[in-house]
Amino acid sequence: MTELGIMGGTRDFLPQEMNRREYVIDRMKQVFRKYGFEPLETPSIERWDTLAGKYGEEGEKLIYHVISSGKLRQGMEEPNFLANYLSDAESRLALRYDLTVPLSRVMGMYGDQTYPDPTDPKGKRQLRKLSRPFKRYQIQPVWRGDRPGAGRYREFFQCDVDVIGSESLLVEAELVAIGSEILSSLGFPSFTIRMNHRKLLTGLIQWSGIPKHQEAVALTAVDKLDKATPEEVQQELLAKNCAKDAVEKLFKVIGLEGNSREVLAQAQELLAQSPLALAGIQELEKVLGHLKDYEIPEQNYKVDLTLARGLDYYTGTIFETVTPAKVGSIGGGGRYDRLIHDLSNGKIDLPAVGTSFGLDRLLTALEMLDLLQTVPPISEVLVTRFTDPGAATLGLSLAKELRNEGIHTEIFYGDEPFSPNEMRKQLGYANEKKITYVLILGPGEIESGVVALRNMNDRSQQMVPLDEIVPMLKQLCHT
Amino acid sequence: MTELGIMGGTRDFLPQEMNRREYVIDRMKQVFRKYGFEPLETPSIERWDTLAGKYGEEGEKLIYHVISSGKLRQGMEEPNFLANYLSDAESRLALRYDLTVPLSRVMGMYGDQTYPDPTDPKGKRQLRKLSRPFKRYQIQPVWRGDRPGAGRYREFFQCDVDVIGSESLLVEAELVAIGSEILSSLGFPSFTIRMNHRKLLTGLIQWSGIPKHQEAVALTAVDKLDKATPEEVQQELLAKNCAKDAVEKLFKVIGLEGNSREVLAQAQELLAQSPLALAGIQELEKVLGHLKDYEIPEQNYKVDLTLARGLDYYTGTIFETVTPAKVGSIGGGGRYDRLIHDLSNGKIDLPAVGTSFGLDRLLTALEMLDLLQTVPPISEVLVTRFTDPGAATLGLSLAKELRNEGIHTEIFYGDEPFSPNEMRKQLGYANEKKITYVLILGPGEIESGVVALRNMNDRSQQMVPLDEIVPMLKQLCHT
Repeated sequence: MTELGIMGGTRDFLPQEMNRREYVIDRMKQVFRKYGFEPLETPSIERWDTLAGKYGEEGEKLIYHVISSGKLRQGMEEPNFLANYLSDAESRLALRYDLTVPLSRVMGMYGDQTYPDPTDPKGKRQLRKLSRPFKRYQIQPVWRGDRPGAGRYREFFQCDVDVIGSESLLVEAELVAIGSEILSSLGFPSFTIRMNHRKLLTGLIQWSGIPKHQEAVALTAVDKLDKATPEEVQQELLAKNCAKDAVEKLFKVIGLEGNSREVLAQAQELLAQSPLALAGIQELEKVLGHLKDYEIPEQNYKVDLTLARGLDYYTGTIFETVTPAKVGSIGGGGRYDRLIHDLSNGKIDLPAVGTSFGLDRLLTALEMLDLLQTVPPISEVLVTRFTDPGAATLGLSLAKELRNEGIHTEIFYGDEPFSPNEMRKQLGYANEKKITYVLILGPGEIESGVVALRNMNDRSQQMVPLDEIVPMLKQLCHT
Repeated sequence: MTELGIMGGTRDFLPQEMNRREYVIDRMKQVFRKYGFEPLETPSIERWDTLAGKYGEEGEKLIYHVISSGKLRQGMEEPNFLANYLSDAESRLALRYDLTVPLSRVMGMYGDQTYPDPTDPKGKRQLRKLSRPFKRYQIQPVWRGDRPGAGRYREFFQCDVDVIGSESLLVEAELVAIGSEILSSLGFPSFTIRMNHRKLLTGLIQWSGIPKHQEAVALTAVDKLDKATPEEVQQELLAKNCAKDAVEKLFKVIGLEGNSREVLAQAQELLAQSPLALAGIQELEKVLGHLKDYEIPEQNYKVDLTLARGLDYYTGTIFETVTPAKVGSIGGGGRYDRLIHDLSNGKIDLPAVGTSFGLDRLLTALEMLDLLQTVPPISEVLVTRFTDPGAATLGLSLAKELRNEGIHTEIFYGDEPFSPNEMRKQLGYANEKKITYVLILGPGEIESGVVALRNMNDRSQQMVPLDEIVPMLKQLCHT
C-alpha cells in the first residue's frame, strides 16, 4: 500500500495554522468592508477560452486542465482524443490562475446587465446592476502548476481588492490607506508602501534617450533594483546596447533622494521637457495630497522611483508593500485602465485600479517577526467531568451558560459508558488545545457550591462560588 | 467571438449574494468555535489514489481529473497517453469530492504523528499532535461532475463538523445542540432535528423477520419514507419478496406515535427480544438525557423511527434536519465508527461522529422563508463630495473618523480631475449600494459647520452640527 500524501506544492492547514489564517483574513475583510468594498466569489473552474491568451506563453503552461472522469473514459475509445480535446477550446475547462481575469469576465458579463436583486423579497425582485464604480474584494485560492519551492505553492490564496469604473485618484489613496490600516492592525512595527507611476517611468525612459524599442528592456532592468545594485543594473543596460549617456540620465533621476515631495519636486525640474512624466508626477502629488488628508502616517508610504512592477498592463500609479521581514513584497498593484477591456474580450471598457495581497507571504512575514503569538487559541474554557452527567448535571448547564456569554467552552467528553477520568488526562487535553481556563467540578466542589478555576498558563488555582464563575470568566476572557 | 460564460453548475456569487453567504457562514463558524471546534482546510486537489474506491462506482464517475498543461502537451507525443495516464493511479490528480475522505486522510497522516507547533515562537518549536478527540469544522467547496439541475451544482460548499476519537454520546448531543443553535440564530421559526439509531434500525429489521440478505433492501426502502407514503414503501418491500408479516411487524414499530420518550418506551417493549435494538434505544435515551441537560427546546428535535439515511457507513445515532421550507433536509449526519479506518487505508482506527450542512440548501431555505431580509448591506454611510478635497478636506477626515468607529463608510469618488457631481448621481450610487445614510457636505453646509444627514430608507433629512455627526451615526449604525 502506498503512503498517504498530498501533491507537492499543496498544503493541509491544521487547526493552529488555520486559526492564524482566519485571523489574518478576518482583519483584512474588516478593513475592506469598512471602506465599502463588497465580496465577490467566482467558480474555481473557468472555461478555457476565458483564461486562454491572458497570461503569456509561460503562464499558460502552468494552468491546470479539468476533465471529468466520464470524458476521459469516453476518450479511451477515441483514437485522437487528446488532439481533438486540445483543439476544442470552448468545451475545455481549467482551474483559475488568478482573480483578475475572473473579475474581468464578471465585468464583461454583468457590468452592463441587470439581474434580479436577490435582496428583494421573493416575488418582488427588482432589477439590479453592479454598482458603478464597482468596489470588490475577493479572497480565494488560485492554482499554478509551478515547480514547488520555498514560498512557491501550486495552490495559494490571493486577496484582491479593486475598484472598477473610476478614474479618481482618491481610489489610489484609499488603496494605500487600506494597506496601511491592515498592516497596522496586524501589528507590523513598520512597513513601507512604495509608490511610483508608469507615466513618470515611461516619460523618464524616453527623456533619457533610450529608444522606443528598448523601453521594455529598460523597465525590466529597473524592476530588478530591489534585488540588484544600481551598478549591476546599469551594466545590464549597457550590455543590452543602451547608450551610456542615456543610462546615466536615467539613473540621475532614479537615484534622487529625499522624502516623497522632495523627490517629486526634483524630478519635476529635471523632467520639465517630458509632458508624460509631468502628468505622472502631478498624479502622484494628488495621491500624496489625499493621503495627507487621510492622515496616513508619512513613514508608511514613500514615492520610490526605482519601483517598476514587472507586469506590463499598468497605466498609472503603481505600488508595492514591503515589511522588515525578508520575504519580498507582501502585496502590490496599481492602475490598469485598459486591462478590463482586453480581458473581457472587449465587452466592457472601464478604468480600474487594485491591489493584491499574498496571504502566504503576509503570514510568513508575520511569523518571521513573531507577530502571531497574540492570536488566541479557539477554546477558552474546559469544563472537566468527574461524575456522569445524568439528568440536570451542573457541568453541562455551566457550559451552556458560558457559551451563551460568547465564551468558547468545551466539556470533557470522556468515554462511553462514562467512567471518571483522572485529572491528568483532562488537564492534558486542555494542554493539547492550549485552553487557558479549566473548571474543576469534582463531587466535593459540587457539594460545597464552588468550582476550582485553574489557570493553565501560570498554574494558579482558586476556588470560586458557583454563582460568580460565569461573570468572572466573562471578564477574564473578553478583556 | 464566443459569448463570455461559465460552466453549467457553477456560479458567480455577486456581492449581495456573497454578503448573505458570508453572514450564514459567520453564524455557523461562531457556533462551531463556541463549542471548541477548530478549523481545518485541505487542498482542493487530492491524489487520485486518496479518492479512488471511496464513493462507489457511480460516485467515482463524477470526480474531476486535474492535469497540468505541461503533461497534456507532452501527451501529444505519446501514442498511448490516455491509457498510460489512466493506469497510473499514483501520479493522477483530482478535485476533492467531499470533505470526509480528506479528513480521513488527515487523520491517517497526522493522527498519530507529532509536528512542530506553529504557534510556538520560531526556533522554539515544540512538537505537537492533533488533539484527541479531534474536533474540527471544515467549510470548503467540493466538485462533482453531475448533470446540473434545480439545487444541484458541480461546485458547491459543504460545512462539516466532526469529532474523531470519542465514543461519548455527549458528542451526539453537542452536535444536535450546535445544529439547534445555528438554526435558531439564523431565525428559523421552527425546525426539527430528526434522530434515529442504526443499531435500533438493524435490530428492528432482524426482529421483524426480514432475512439478513434483505436488510439493505429494507433500509433503502425505509429511507424513502420522507417522500413516499407508508403504503407505497410496504408495497415495494412486498414486491421485493419480503414476507407480509415481516413487513407488518416492521411498520408496527416504525409507525409508533408520540414524543421521543414515548416512542422509545413503546419500541423498547416491542423489541425486548432484540439486544441490538435495545442497545440503540438505550443510546438514544442517553442522548435525550444530555439534550435535556443542555436545555435544548424539545420541539427542536425528535426521535423519528422512519429516518434511515442512505449511506451505509453509519453505525450509531443518525440525524437529519428539516425546516418548514420545502427543500429537503438542510443537514444530516451520524456516528460512523469504522469509516475513518477504511478511508485512511487502515492507517488509523478511531470512532467518529459528525454532521454536514449544505450551504446552498440552507440559503435556499432561508430565502424561501424570507429570513435573509435582515442581513444588512455592507456600506452604512456615504459621504458626498461637492468640492474637490485638496489639502485637509472635511469629507475625507470625516470618513476616516467614521471608519475609526467601525462604521462602514464610503466616500464618493467622482471623476478625475474632480468636477462637482450632481446630487442625483451621488444619491443614485447610495441607492445602488443600498446605503442607508448619506452625509451631504455642500459648500454652504461646510461654511455653517453643519452637515445634512439623509436617511435613504424614509427619505428624511436633518441638519446636524459637525461635532455631533460621528456619535449620532455611531448610535444609528450600531443598534
